[in-house]
Amino acid sequence: MESLTISEWLLNELKIGRFPARMPAHRRVYESIRRAIASHHLTPGTRLPSTRSLAEALGLSRNTLLAAFEQLHDEGYVISQTGSGTRVASTFPDEFTEQKNARAAGVADATKSAAGLSKRGAIAAGLAEQPSYEVQPFAPGEDDFSAFPTQLWRRLLNRQWRDPQPSHLDYGHAGGYLPLRRAIANYLRMSRAVNLTVEQILITSGTQQSIDLCARLLTDHGDRVWVENPCYWGARRVLEVNGLQLHPVPVDDEGMAPGNADFRRPPRLIYTTPSHQYPKGVVMSYGRRRLLLDYAANQGAWILEDDYDSEFRFEGRPLSSLQGMDQSGRVLYLGTFSKVMYPGIKLGYLVVPPDLAESFKRGLYELQRPGQVVIQAALAEFIEEGHFASHIRRLRQIYGERRRLLQKALAPVTSVGARLPPAGSGLHLVVELPSYCDDVRVAELAAEQGLRVYPLSGYGIGEHREKGLIIGYAYAATERIAPYGRILADVIQAALSH
Amino acid sequence: MESLTISEWLLNELKIGRFPARMPAHRRVYESIRRAIASHHLTPGTRLPSTRSLAEALGLSRNTLLAAFEQLHDEGYVISQTGSGTRVASTFPDEFTEQKNARAAGVADATKSAAGLSKRGAIAAGLAEQPSYEVQPFAPGEDDFSAFPTQLWRRLLNRQWRDPQPSHLDYGHAGGYLPLRRAIANYLRMSRAVNLTVEQILITSGTQQSIDLCARLLTDHGDRVWVENPCYWGARRVLEVNGLQLHPVPVDDEGMAPGNADFRRPPRLIYTTPSHQYPKGVVMSYGRRRLLLDYAANQGAWILEDDYDSEFRFEGRPLSSLQGMDQSGRVLYLGTFSKVMYPGIKLGYLVVPPDLAESFKRGLYELQRPGQVVIQAALAEFIEEGHFASHIRRLRQIYGERRRLLQKALAPVTSVGARLPPAGSGLHLVVELPSYCDDVRVAELAAEQGLRVYPLSGYGIGEHREKGLIIGYAYAATERIAPYGRILADVIQAALSH
Repeated sequence: MESLTISEWLLNELKIGRFPARMPAHRRVYESIRRAIASHHLTPGTRLPSTRSLAEALGLSRNTLLAAFEQLHDEGYVISQTGSGTRVASTFPDEFTEQKNARAAGVADATKSAAGLSKRGAIAAGLAEQPSYEVQPFAPGEDDFSAFPTQLWRRLLNRQWRDPQPSHLDYGHAGGYLPLRRAIANYLRMSRAVNLTVEQILITSGTQQSIDLCARLLTDHGDRVWVENPCYWGARRVLEVNGLQLHPVPVDDEGMAPGNADFRRPPRLIYTTPSHQYPKGVVMSYGRRRLLLDYAANQGAWILEDDYDSEFRFEGRPLSSLQGMDQSGRVLYLGTFSKVMYPGIKLGYLVVPPDLAESFKRGLYELQRPGQVVIQAALAEFIEEGHFASHIRRLRQIYGERRRLLQKALAPVTSVGARLPPAGSGLHLVVELPSYCDDVRVAELAAEQGLRVYPLSGYGIGEHREKGLIIGYAYAATERIAPYGRILADVIQAALSH
Repeated sequence: MESLTISEWLLNELKIGRFPARMPAHRRVYESIRRAIASHHLTPGTRLPSTRSLAEALGLSRNTLLAAFEQLHDEGYVISQTGSGTRVASTFPDEFTEQKNARAAGVADATKSAAGLSKRGAIAAGLAEQPSYEVQPFAPGEDDFSAFPTQLWRRLLNRQWRDPQPSHLDYGHAGGYLPLRRAIANYLRMSRAVNLTVEQILITSGTQQSIDLCARLLTDHGDRVWVENPCYWGARRVLEVNGLQLHPVPVDDEGMAPGNADFRRPPRLIYTTPSHQYPKGVVMSYGRRRLLLDYAANQGAWILEDDYDSEFRFEGRPLSSLQGMDQSGRVLYLGTFSKVMYPGIKLGYLVVPPDLAESFKRGLYELQRPGQVVIQAALAEFIEEGHFASHIRRLRQIYGERRRLLQKALAPVTSVGARLPPAGSGLHLVVELPSYCDDVRVAELAAEQGLRVYPLSGYGIGEHREKGLIIGYAYAATERIAPYGRILADVIQAALSH
């Protein structure tokens, strides 16, 4: 983009840009330019127009532009040199340099592994996903935290900090802040039919830590773990790094579907997403639930139930949790606040059988150390005062609308051999593609249109992987779902017509 | 304690209690009663005086008492029943039920392990330390975060939340918030002679996570790791849970002292605390540093330098870090903000060799997920605006004074065969006891006087463990150091005179 174009583009961007209503002008300018740099629309070395000329072109005050440029400079996006104006930095804050395609699902970038890593280190680092700062519409796993009531949250935090108890600054108790655990217990009992007392809840720093803790406390190096195939790769990675042998179990229309060959080699742990299989979206049937519970009870296996997005059910009656059906105390249930609140809050919860509660608290304290009690206390108030429930209702409405619009926009793909399975919950849709189709290539074609979707095969384990696209809609602005969805439908139709 | 006694005791407690100057009366009352319940001075079922009678006895308003009682009730410390008044609850928030003696250093409480734990799970849970809510004077590892400028911190957080960038609510970049990494880089270059670029820094959620990440990325199950003997047991536990074979290396007056028998079996990782050996307090000599660095370079081993309390150096010239002497890129350097800021902040940092930076960022993202960008941003400002440096100066003054008073109060113990090695830094002192002495018993005798110290033998590995007491002074109020120190000196003298 040249100078003149940059002004024009920026003017346009500020008009259509997806910003919270009360974001001040300097932040909109900053954010627009930052995104353009992050997405390589503004390339290193590009000279930016002067703040004076931009201010004129945009009809903003020069101070507004100066504030935006200062922040860009402070964060390393641009460099300023006397006499040569402001240029896009050639080394960005490193979040931008590596990741352009790093997030294509499960695709390893092993070339980045440094010499000296251990075998398990290479597993962790080689396949790890870099966070995409420049979140794009349709990236699964991203939620729209712009709807989060930040000013309410700020007041709650502020109240906590006005006169903090000394114990709130300490590590706190490994189980977590008691009023928060009470609030979660009430929520889980009512919304998810989880069967629990407060003592069974542990506050963790999120899903990865919850899975990690379960893997370490319940399994040993070399033990077998059942995972769904396809499977959430974040969980898979943590299990593998813990030295576990992954045993993939297929998923059919009733959820995880173990057969005789699977049963013959009992696992120590079963990792499953019964409410909304990740990524396929299937709900586990009652019969399959009973089967899994009985098998686990007979074999002394543990079931790890990851209820990662059950808050977002748009139709049908809510399903109870697997944990709530368990009579034998074999299920560990985990959830997260990152999807309802905001990802960086780093708070999740784990519900363990009563017998394990004390050991888990000790293990969590020893391996991870708790903390962030102030945030836990603010979250407890957020829940108790009813904000959590009303925020979920609001998100459900927003996401439900986005889902409906996306389903509608994608409907044409069923005419060329793709399948759009019905689903009433979650934050992503699956388009199933014929087995001959190269879904990685289709995802690349979508990326060329500025739309990031993940190939279903990237979640698969083994040779015969299902093909499809995982399309997150929680992050995309509602008014953009229809046009984006049409572009995506076109990409899919073109790919299948070849 | 009976009703009358409770009023009297509370009156006394409010007078001498160690509270921040501006803590309101209801919080002082709450805190005093909470502590009494936590330390079992008020036993379950004990009936508390009515708020009316307490208000009269203490000369406080009844509303003050009502507010205190309400909080105690909300947090589960007391129960109220119509007609029978308010009683101490029989099941406390569970932080209080288990831990009375759980913190005696390294002493296993394996009976608590639930059936179903894995071998590594039993290691983690069986030996894990429960956090002691009721922190007592002289407990090592506790710092006095009552000196932390909470209102300044609140303003900085509040500023961040006033208008948060969307990216600050996301997981953020695995390396951490760039301005914070810059601020840390500057600090480490100047204060610790660490040799680094910003790209080498990762923000972690603390020391345990830093050690865990290094163990996972650099070692495999079954690999050998050198640890100091005696050693920080928090580190030991994380290394063991990662399946590493611990090889203890003795510590002499020059720090970690590997001999020929050690050299013959090279480790993959060396965990060391060169600036201030934990727990003995020795500073590693120049010769020993060179030896370790050369050996690591020759053998391709990694050195993990835990610089856990180097901010607190009271005399002598500051020592440079081992990392700063390393020419071969074998040292990973880690530090924490929990001792300078407050423990629950859950932020630490890891400096890795340039070649490993990218892999570590990926591994951290995959295994732990980053987050808490708002707090990182507030901390960056705290450092950049000079508050960090002035807070350290203030803490250094406070802790230096406490150290001096404690050394003076303990001086008499040298007359009965104990040794008080000179040391000019850190947050704890060591009293070395003769080898025939049962230091666990001496620690128990101190505990009976209300003083918690840890036996040195609890940090040892193997049969021949050094005897002594580890005495933290950072948490004890300055005016109480002398009287508490004298009690402790009396306990030691009595024990050695038997």
